[in-house]
Amino acid sequence: MRVLVLGGDGYLGWPTAMHFSAGGHEVHVVDNYLRRKMHSEAGSGSLVPIAPDLPTRARTWHDITGKTITVTEGDLINWQLVKNLFREFSPEAIIHYGEVPSAPYSMMDHDRAVLTQYNNVISTLNVLWAMHSYVPRAHLVKLGTMGEYGTPNIDIEEGWIEISHNGRSDRMLYPKMPASLYHCSKVHDSTNIEFCCRVWGLRATDLNQGVVYGIETEQTRLAGGLATRFDYDSVHGTALNRFCVQAVIGHPLTPYGKGGQTRGFLNIVDTLRCVELASLKPSAPGEFRVFNQFTEQFSINELAELVCRAAKDVGIEATIRHVDNPRVEKEEHYYNARHTKLLDLGLEPHLLSETLVEHMLETIQRHQNRVIAEHIMPSTTWRDGHQPVPGEQLIAGVGV
Amino acid sequence: MRVLVLGGDGYLGWPTAMHFSAGGHEVHVVDNYLRRKMHSEAGSGSLVPIAPDLPTRARTWHDITGKTITVTEGDLINWQLVKNLFREFSPEAIIHYGEVPSAPYSMMDHDRAVLTQYNNVISTLNVLWAMHSYVPRAHLVKLGTMGEYGTPNIDIEEGWIEISHNGRSDRMLYPKMPASLYHCSKVHDSTNIEFCCRVWGLRATDLNQGVVYGIETEQTRLAGGLATRFDYDSVHGTALNRFCVQAVIGHPLTPYGKGGQTRGFLNIVDTLRCVELASLKPSAPGEFRVFNQFTEQFSINELAELVCRAAKDVGIEATIRHVDNPRVEKEEHYYNARHTKLLDLGLEPHLLSETLVEHMLETIQRHQNRVIAEHIMPSTTWRDGHQPVPGEQLIAGVGV
Repeated sequence: MRVLVLGGDGYLGWPTAMHFSAGGHEVHVVDNYLRRKMHSEAGSGSLVPIAPDLPTRARTWHDITGKTITVTEGDLINWQLVKNLFREFSPEAIIHYGEVPSAPYSMMDHDRAVLTQYNNVISTLNVLWAMHSYVPRAHLVKLGTMGEYGTPNIDIEEGWIEISHNGRSDRMLYPKMPASLYHCSKVHDSTNIEFCCRVWGLRATDLNQGVVYGIETEQTRLAGGLATRFDYDSVHGTALNRFCVQAVIGHPLTPYGKGGQTRGFLNIVDTLRCVELASLKPSAPGEFRVFNQFTEQFSINELAELVCRAAKDVGIEATIRHVDNPRVEKEEHYYNARHTKLLDLGLEPHLLSETLVEHMLETIQRHQNRVIAEHIMPSTTWRDGHQPVPGEQLIAGVGV
Repeated sequence: MRVLVLGGDGYLGWPTAMHFSAGGHEVHVVDNYLRRKMHSEAGSGSLVPIAPDLPTRARTWHDITGKTITVTEGDLINWQLVKNLFREFSPEAIIHYGEVPSAPYSMMDHDRAVLTQYNNVISTLNVLWAMHSYVPRAHLVKLGTMGEYGTPNIDIEEGWIEISHNGRSDRMLYPKMPASLYHCSKVHDSTNIEFCCRVWGLRATDLNQGVVYGIETEQTRLAGGLATRFDYDSVHGTALNRFCVQAVIGHPLTPYGKGGQTRGFLNIVDTLRCVELASLKPSAPGEFRVFNQFTEQFSINELAELVCRAAKDVGIEATIRHVDNPRVEKEEHYYNARHTKLLDLGLEPHLLSETLVEHMLETIQRHQNRVIAEHIMPSTTWRDGHQPVPGEQLIAGVGV
């Protein structure tokens, strides 16, 4: 299968590219390095050292496995680039991670909110037009997020819900209540993709992914030069990854607010498998298919406690300190999200365990000297925007 | 009240500005003339002659009424302009029509789809950030469209719906199934606005408006120089207005497909009253209020038949010819949309009658020599995009 990985330099994109290449697929990756630029502007960076660019990564991959991953360094906002890419590579599956991925970034200030929505919505619109124009039978596998749903008081279904109302019923799109302007951009994407499936007959699977944790995959372990990035800062890090780093450097674990926020979580190796399963069984022409991509639900307090227990086992006394919640969100709420469709396709989850956390803690200890502690605590609140962090050199006018 | 009318040069914007000014409010209008540019590019134009620009319109308004409407000729995409505008005028109500308003335009080609979504989503995001930054207590009255809902098999509620599911229930946003990439852009706006109300405590009323018809309002009648534009072409004209023009020039009335498509309609004078009612009773801080803004439902066939009957009364023998539907939409479907909230606020609808259509036909007859017949039939299909029309000089690369 010809697989195009958009955002192929990211935390998930690079391991996904290797995973498909290892599986014998023809893989082309695209990235504009926006994530790297955002880090260098903020003065933050990956805990684990990563290769400097995609050509270097692809060279290492070839050296070690004999397999080829081809590369485009460029921006999906550029319609000429997207057109040429789809015309020339003619992908059968498009794995689309190519978006600004951070909720706090989108709430920092006007310019970063606009950049997030402009980048995400228009890039995806470019991809949809390119599919319509050049590869109308290809399958789009789009990374969305569970954060699109918010925390409704009813069970969360997988994208669609049967609604009965005044004696009639219909299968409708599940209502969304996104958690940030970044999450709003993902909802916009879903709206556009559903429309293009319905009207142009495109095939798409929207993967509403939970919070990913983990450092390694089967392929990243093969060589240092194949490692994927690992972020723990308040802008790009996710909860479990950040708690593990906090434990290692002796920083209290910092749940936001009461910590009763419940979310879906999954291991990075399950992300790769989910994307693969979705690609191998594409949706039908015209079908907008939605999977909730996570394996377990936890509250933030449960995660923090798990990390404390695992830390103790490796000789670290971790503590928990609740901090003011920078976000506007419910801190105690009902949460029950269905996630059976990927299991039906054959997913065998790697569940979270103390052993896994201990392994993460040990890996983090090896890179402990690279932690930049200033970036761990939140510097952006949903209501008041961003407060500068020492070492930041934020560029004004990044909006469009 | 200080009222800011965004898109104040348009079919609805200019009459709205005069209506508020006549009511004693302090009115400032903004427009970038994009609608006029789109017409001049296409070789189409308003049936009714209109003044060349907003300063001329405002001067005429002042000459005739002694009242002042102030003007900004500029683009809401320009954040500096939006910031200055909100800081200096400090609006209490913002009436937001300032968007690319055409479904067919958004389906013509990639560049026009991108222009529509970029313009609409980012302009509205600019407005929301400006409210948050400078006038957090102001009230946004945003023009949406009934076309955001599509044609579900259950009753359409006003923006929110109580959903019971697996023994629990919640008040959720009503699921949307937009009818074009333009309609998608309006859904994106609604998503962003609801978020900003919920998180920043902004006040907003989303007016999901039906199809507007009519040529005159109390103020446009005062002088030729105060007339509002009247479009009948396939890109900017709405069904009833177009049918009336077709009847006058001896063109068959052309329902798309079977003509069983049912929609909500309202008179332009009711639009002005609805916007006024919403502004005088603003939503509460943090409230995202949605009104369905129309007064009657008709199928397209019913409209065509009504125009035929009215035409006969003024001596015109109109005929009906169904044409292939350029859109992808259901041509026979359930449709029952609630629209009681504006009635509760005091709206007294001007319902559609043969007499009103006869009056429209007579007005059109006075301008009959200005009709450009080439632009009446659809030139864009939802599946295949745009076919050039004689006289068009479409600019390539209009996308962003």
